[in-house]
Amino acid sequence: MAITISVFERALDEGRGLARDMRVRWALEEVGQFYEVRLVPWEKFKAEAHLARNPFGQIPTYEEGELTLFESGAIVLHIAERFPGLLPQDADARARAIMWMFAALSTMEPPIMDRDVVEYFEAGKSWQGERFAMVDARIRDRLAQLSARMGASDWLDGAFSAADIIMVHVLRRLEGSELLEEYPNLVAYIARAAARPAYQRAFAAQLALWEKAQ
Amino acid sequence: MAITISVFERALDEGRGLARDMRVRWALEEVGQFYEVRLVPWEKFKAEAHLARNPFGQIPTYEEGELTLFESGAIVLHIAERFPGLLPQDADARARAIMWMFAALSTMEPPIMDRDVVEYFEAGKSWQGERFAMVDARIRDRLAQLSARMGASDWLDGAFSAADIIMVHVLRRLEGSELLEEYPNLVAYIARAAARPAYQRAFAAQLALWEKAQ
Repeated sequence: MAITISVFERALDEGRGLARDMRVRWALEEVGQFYEVRLVPWEKFKAEAHLARNPFGQIPTYEEGELTLFESGAIVLHIAERFPGLLPQDADARARAIMWMFAALSTMEPPIMDRDVVEYFEAGKSWQGERFAMVDARIRDRLAQLSARMGASDWLDGAFSAADIIMVHVLRRLEGSELLEEYPNLVAYIARAAARPAYQRAFAAQLALWEKAQ
Repeated sequence: MAITISVFERALDEGRGLARDMRVRWALEEVGQFYEVRLVPWEKFKAEAHLARNPFGQIPTYEEGELTLFESGAIVLHIAERFPGLLPQDADARARAIMWMFAALSTMEPPIMDRDVVEYFEAGKSWQGERFAMVDARIRDRLAQLSARMGASDWLDGAFSAADIIMVHVLRRLEGSELLEEYPNLVAYIARAAARPAYQRAFAAQLALWEKAQ
């Protein structure tokens, strides 16, 4: 059954692969599934056609036959359940991999996204600096806890899984902030993930789209 | 196999049922599973024994035989997969229910939790009022989108599911803010959920714990 995903026609990150469709592209490349891409222009995000796919007007969405999904975490989990390779066979290990997907999205991502709110939506406010310091302290706490748990492990819990896709993509949003550099095992973790051929194919696909839009 | 969850020994919300163990208690009550409770005192959250269960030092955790899980979303999903009653049988409907769990945690909860950050951690700052206005605008956007999608439906997508547990609990954190009152179908949705016997048993259990701690 053909798979179609929705992505930004012009990503705000200029091809850095930070938009959430990167997670879905990467998962599909890991399991070797071809997909079609629907480009959503900025002015169409709140249009009825897109809201029917995602009531919150975000990307990515995922369509496969009668099924339409939104939320990158849910889509990656669906792909991992639908095709082999992204979740362990053992029931307990599988539950832990799914747990790490939720940890990436619920515990790690909110303060990291909040940093972007401070950077872009609180620019020019007298208190931007103070807010940066508060948010960065929350992010450092989370990075320190994650770094301590990972230690010298290659991946979050045993073999590479769907959880590593989400976690690495969440952490990548900190690139350039100097926060990551305080945790060398997390920097190495991201590099290890980015070296995967599936990651590179997904990254190249979104970059090509950005370059074409210029 | 015996199930044990970790909860705050003394919840900060004084028995209002806003701590995340409420989600897990509710799910276990919906599927009719007995559970043991481990009380974690404040001074033990960053202790090694608790960090071994949850590297981020949060509650709830869930233990069942050899399996230890953290993240309320992951625990509720595990319960829903392990015991019947909280996920549809149909594969597409099941994927959509899981999607709504992620939507509650990734799209609805972050701005709602941020409101608590403004209230408690930015109290006394000259800019607290301005931040409240910014966060409330983001919350209103999400509530309006959710309200529009739900319309007159009883639950998020067909029958009551694990997603309604997470979504209702996320929304309840806004009680008392007057934001919810702008969306009568969401107020009715919460009331409909809170009338469920399983919800009431879970609520009573956490309230009894709070009362005992006085």
